[in-house]
Amino acid sequence: MGFTEILGYSAGVITTLTFLPQVIKTWKERSAKDVSLWMFIIAATNEVMWIGYGILKDDWVIILTNAVVLILSVTMIGLKLKYK
Amino acid sequence: MGFTEILGYSAGVITTLTFLPQVIKTWKERSAKDVSLWMFIIAATNEVMWIGYGILKDDWVIILTNAVVLILSVTMIGLKLKYK
Repeated sequence: MGFTEILGYSAGVITTLTFLPQVIKTWKERSAKDVSLWMFIIAATNEVMWIGYGILKDDWVIILTNAVVLILSVTMIGLKLKYK
Repeated sequence: MGFTEILGYSAGVITTLTFLPQVIKTWKERSAKDVSLWMFIIAATNEVMWIGYGILKDDWVIILTNAVVLILSVTMIGLKLKYK
């Protein structure tokens, strides 16, 4: 595996974790007033589209990475609705 | 262009716009207390990795979409530091 592939896979792993700090922060502080609900509604809808694309292309990397982001997005929507 | 390609390109366009509602909300409300700074630092670093990957693969779709997200992420980091 060359540098390009290592960079691509590393970038993919980090992408899946992007929303994690926001979920942890909101979970701990129980406040989400300043967080955009629409950002996570758009993200969740978008992940469903990517998962559909991954299924059609039979690409498990796309399916699994987007499934992780979908779970974090839906969690964040729940936290936002709970803590406003 | 078949359904799969249309779905993929549509998903890509929506991905670039994910952070826009957060930038607009923070810009208007001048408050970012509940927003995770780390989310956008991770996102910005990640976009630089994706742009590097796109350059190495000579893939302009990857370069351009991630450049848009990088601009939105850096804008959001600036807003977060300004409005705390």
